[in-house]
Amino acid sequence: MIIVLKPGATKSEAEEILSKIEGQGLKPLYMPGSERTVIGALGDERKLGQLHLESHPSVERVDPILAAYKAVSREMHPEDSIVQFGHSRIGSKAFAVIAGPCAVESYEQLSATAIAVRDAGAHGLRGGAFKPRTSPYSFQGLGIEGLKILQRVGQETGLPVITEVVEVADVDAVETYADAFQVGARNMQNFRLLQALGQAGKPVFLKRGMAATVKDVLMSAEYIASEGNSNIVLVERGIRTFETGTRNTLDLSAVCQFKKLSHLPVVVDPSHGTGVREYVAPMAYAAAACGADGILVEAHENPAEALSDGAQSLYPEQFSALMNGLKPFVEAAGRVL
Amino acid sequence: MIIVLKPGATKSEAEEILSKIEGQGLKPLYMPGSERTVIGALGDERKLGQLHLESHPSVERVDPILAAYKAVSREMHPEDSIVQFGHSRIGSKAFAVIAGPCAVESYEQLSATAIAVRDAGAHGLRGGAFKPRTSPYSFQGLGIEGLKILQRVGQETGLPVITEVVEVADVDAVETYADAFQVGARNMQNFRLLQALGQAGKPVFLKRGMAATVKDVLMSAEYIASEGNSNIVLVERGIRTFETGTRNTLDLSAVCQFKKLSHLPVVVDPSHGTGVREYVAPMAYAAAACGADGILVEAHENPAEALSDGAQSLYPEQFSALMNGLKPFVEAAGRVL
Amino acid sequence: MIIVLKPGATKSEAEEILSKIEGQGLKPLYMPGSERTVIGALGDERKLGQLHLESHPSVERVDPILAAYKAVSREMHPEDSIVQFGHSRIGSKAFAVIAGPCAVESYEQLSATAIAVRDAGAHGLRGGAFKPRTSPYSFQGLGIEGLKILQRVGQETGLPVITEVVEVADVDAVETYADAFQVGARNMQNFRLLQALGQAGKPVFLKRGMAATVKDVLMSAEYIASEGNSNIVLVERGIRTFETGTRNTLDLSAVCQFKKLSHLPVVVDPSHGTGVREYVAPMAYAAAACGADGILVEAHENPAEALSDGAQSLYPEQFSALMNGLKPFVEAAGRVL
Amino acid sequence: MIIVLKPGATKSEAEEILSKIEGQGLKPLYMPGSERTVIGALGDERKLGQLHLESHPSVERVDPILAAYKAVSREMHPEDSIVQFGHSRIGSKAFAVIAGPCAVESYEQLSATAIAVRDAGAHGLRGGAFKPRTSPYSFQGLGIEGLKILQRVGQETGLPVITEVVEVADVDAVETYADAFQVGARNMQNFRLLQALGQAGKPVFLKRGMAATVKDVLMSAEYIASEGNSNIVLVERGIRTFETGTRNTLDLSAVCQFKKLSHLPVVVDPSHGTGVREYVAPMAYAAAACGADGILVEAHENPAEALSDGAQSLYPEQFSALMNGLKPFVEAAGRVL
Repeated sequence: MIIVLKPGATKSEAEEILSKIEGQGLKPLYMPGSERTVIGALGDERKLGQLHLESHPSVERVDPILAAYKAVSREMHPEDSIVQFGHSRIGSKAFAVIAGPCAVESYEQLSATAIAVRDAGAHGLRGGAFKPRTSPYSFQGLGIEGLKILQRVGQETGLPVITEVVEVADVDAVETYADAFQVGARNMQNFRLLQALGQAGKPVFLKRGMAATVKDVLMSAEYIASEGNSNIVLVERGIRTFETGTRNTLDLSAVCQFKKLSHLPVVVDPSHGTGVREYVAPMAYAAAACGADGILVEAHENPAEALSDGAQSLYPEQFSALMNGLKPFVEAAGRVL
Repeated sequence: MIIVLKPGATKSEAEEILSKIEGQGLKPLYMPGSERTVIGALGDERKLGQLHLESHPSVERVDPILAAYKAVSREMHPEDSIVQFGHSRIGSKAFAVIAGPCAVESYEQLSATAIAVRDAGAHGLRGGAFKPRTSPYSFQGLGIEGLKILQRVGQETGLPVITEVVEVADVDAVETYADAFQVGARNMQNFRLLQALGQAGKPVFLKRGMAATVKDVLMSAEYIASEGNSNIVLVERGIRTFETGTRNTLDLSAVCQFKKLSHLPVVVDPSHGTGVREYVAPMAYAAAACGADGILVEAHENPAEALSDGAQSLYPEQFSALMNGLKPFVEAAGRVL
Repeated sequence: MIIVLKPGATKSEAEEILSKIEGQGLKPLYMPGSERTVIGALGDERKLGQLHLESHPSVERVDPILAAYKAVSREMHPEDSIVQFGHSRIGSKAFAVIAGPCAVESYEQLSATAIAVRDAGAHGLRGGAFKPRTSPYSFQGLGIEGLKILQRVGQETGLPVITEVVEVADVDAVETYADAFQVGARNMQNFRLLQALGQAGKPVFLKRGMAATVKDVLMSAEYIASEGNSNIVLVERGIRTFETGTRNTLDLSAVCQFKKLSHLPVVVDPSHGTGVREYVAPMAYAAAACGADGILVEAHENPAEALSDGAQSLYPEQFSALMNGLKPFVEAAGRVL
Repeated sequence: MIIVLKPGATKSEAEEILSKIEGQGLKPLYMPGSERTVIGALGDERKLGQLHLESHPSVERVDPILAAYKAVSREMHPEDSIVQFGHSRIGSKAFAVIAGPCAVESYEQLSATAIAVRDAGAHGLRGGAFKPRTSPYSFQGLGIEGLKILQRVGQETGLPVITEVVEVADVDAVETYADAFQVGARNMQNFRLLQALGQAGKPVFLKRGMAATVKDVLMSAEYIASEGNSNIVLVERGIRTFETGTRNTLDLSAVCQFKKLSHLPVVVDPSHGTGVREYVAPMAYAAAACGADGILVEAHENPAEALSDGAQSLYPEQFSALMNGLKPFVEAAGRVL
């Protein structure tokens, strides 16, 4: 850790900080410069977090050298992790496609959609039972009833199912009916929920928050991992920027960052990432090209009647076309679809 | 509502949409142009949300004319609301100053801080018992024990107390010990929590999320109000931008927007808004000047030892100076401190 | 154009606006609603710009229906444009790779780099003679001397050359020595420069500004096209967001937007887009996958000694590897490298 | 300067960098840690910029300790600077109000506006002759004719005048007719223009770019100062964020940052900062409260007929009200209006 003192900080102020560092068992380093005094701390600097040196009135800034996350870091675990989702192995050579409607609306709607995406080659089924909607007057999902439909359709089609969990109290129910948890962008820093999922027994797909840096996402993943559940899949789904031509700005370079900094698998959600039906396929191809391990895509048997997010949902024939178009890119990336 | 059709949309596609609008009891309007056909819907367009016209393959975009929030809008309630917080009336002529540490660390720490801020003129005490921290390895708060300390110190100093609630399961406990709930930026779209608070009996201070527009905040407030609790105070605390010289970018023009669009009181948090101790006072003065109803400020009896957010916490003497400096600005705004 | 009046606007205020619209030869439409009055204007609404209706005190907002750009829009010109750059045809089936150092530093440096990238398969050479640097104390480029080196090396290697122009007074010199102009992100709204380039005889590669929406870029392209030069290539090179793990946030969905809204070719700059050497190749692959017509890449014979932007420049062997890696993705996209 | 090496960097790689640092006359420091090696460089690290250490393949990142700007920094010049603008002294105890239309449209328009703002107490007159407009089809200003009108009206009303310069070739003309240059947000990094203004003899008001950090603005000011002109006024006018309820997000905490890091005076433009007429006054009050040295405000004798930016221009009576409302806040800040 590097501690830069304010201009005018005295030697005795520096010494106070140096002795605090030494008190934590780290090696302190004193570097008086012409315009600023800099202090170094060599060793496992994570211990210094307890000293709150950034609060000290003589300190201008504190630059950590090491990442604050450990369990999810590639340094601690150099090989790629693989997460089992049903019979799908996310992070393996097989590129995973998980598709389905934004919300479970009825058995008929989900079943028709699931059959369509399975027949086109999808490996998993998504569908929301608890929907976090911006407006209290929008459709909020079918709740437990939706979970039951999801499970039934998953069993009938042979597809593993994933659904969003929005609240600690629902963790058990979701674990009962689904093969994986999804944490939505709005709950990425709902730390209590992350901790509960860290104690659950099924994999967690963690979506990037709209204002979250790559490092923030890894810190949230660390919450889950530090409680014992390391079956985590990171999901890039776009961040909020000034650009209004797309619903979010899909940050595909985040895939590169995640892969460099962490061993966890990464999938991309081009549906929420763009919010525009016709941009979903090209962004899915780009995701495969830049090294993602899979995609999460919204498809609906009849998007024009969808109760939520219809504008970004693919028609069954569009989903089929996507699968066909995707194949050569997945193969160019040295993987199989 | 204005519906712009894609170029090439046919007359029969337009007629399909026109008849859907009519089916909801609204007056449809057909406006064929040289390059685009535009459709209007006159009446309470909120009913049209169920039609999901944005999902229709012939629709390019949908522009609502009316706001999606109602209960919190100024149009429904033209006069300013006043929210009772202890003996303080937020939104009245009295400018409210609520101060205290980021986290309740001990009885001694909170008590010393509370006495200092009360003696300097604060009207309320803040302090976190449940701390949502980016890192799982950071101090997470004292929990229920912290709530009890908060209540005790509030009673001893005569200050009403406010504390953050992060989870539905804690709503009852927080309501028992505190005079108001705070919803943090990370939970601004934790809709289940908002619904639970909408059924609670104490006021809610709703902080703006880091990626939330002013309209998003009002939609979240609508969640609370639509469940029956209209004692809501909006809190501007900065948004996330590319600027790194401050922790967030405090958006004071949001105060103007909130005041124009809603009847709810608005307070500003210059501590989280800037993250830098020496910017807190000037931003507090600016908040008073632009029409805010109060401020939420972090102060600590010894920031250099604070367990969280020390870099932005004021020393007791700085808080006193802030109160003195604030007074002429509050009076210039036609209010009293 | 749709004009929403403020609540409380009177019928006579509406009539004043309706008659202004009629006075411009458009068909006015009066839509009084329960909460707001809406006015429509059917016809070529671009004429209404002169009325400045958004300034009118009774007007709440004005929503245009048509885009403000015309010459560069796909509606006016449905087929893809092809821009000739030396013997390369940007926008054709051939995917274009233009590579070279950030700055021309010397004949030796540029020549060695050019030979390396040409031998690896590049189709064009880039190199800056006028460098817009954030700091006045950084290397500012070799100026005219740099242009001469660029021309010489271009001729010796048979590669067409492109270089940045930063000032109206330099347009003639750049046109003399180079095969194409590059407008940098910082000058994307230097409208005087755009107008001068609109009167020049060589193609213009227009880079997206760091705070520019896709529509802003198209408006800047319209400046060039409206002066007579329609040989324009749009360049996505990342926007500024809160994410600090990359230099910019490369917005590949902008490629989709550009392709939908405009007929102009689009290339991607993964070097400036990420600022990190090891992310350049995966982002180049993604660019090919999502439909870009080419890439602009920084390569240097010895990045560790580069006078600018070395951290994002590829070593010659990395560039070769990029070309090899790129080929299957270009072919998957139905193009040739 | 602190140089963090990549994991796995060897001792000999570290030694290569250490000897480069020593070769520049700085004191090198070697800090091998358990997970990373860190290298320090003590002394005037600005010399190290020439080494481009960030490009070195063993270097993970480089953290400068000192700011890259010098001439405009408060460390080099601890007292506040005062810039003379006509008889106004920007940065003195007198709070400066500079008002006028977005564009000079005619003698009659400018004269009527100037008389109105002068009679209400303004200290300077603004008005654009060269207008950088997003669309090539919008009014582009009267050019030299506009400058002449501006000079004439300035002389008739006794107000010093400021106008935007957009191109090196216009610097002399603007200097002839106006009392100060304005550099607009879109040209903040038009470094050639900044250098030309550094050689001019009149003060420069430098507006913050839409994607510029506070440090970027100071680097641009350094361009001007390093050429010899230190009569620079920094202008906060809002940055581009995801918030769409205002035209930009006015970042008033930037005033605090500028004041801390630099000795230059700072004024705020609440008109462009918000883009909404009714938010101009409260943001002007807030600017005075947080320590700004003045404001730049758009006013027009008849905004409903303005050729540009009418929606944010004040009516004469609104400007008078602003001046009356502003006075107590200016006085609360210990200044005079």
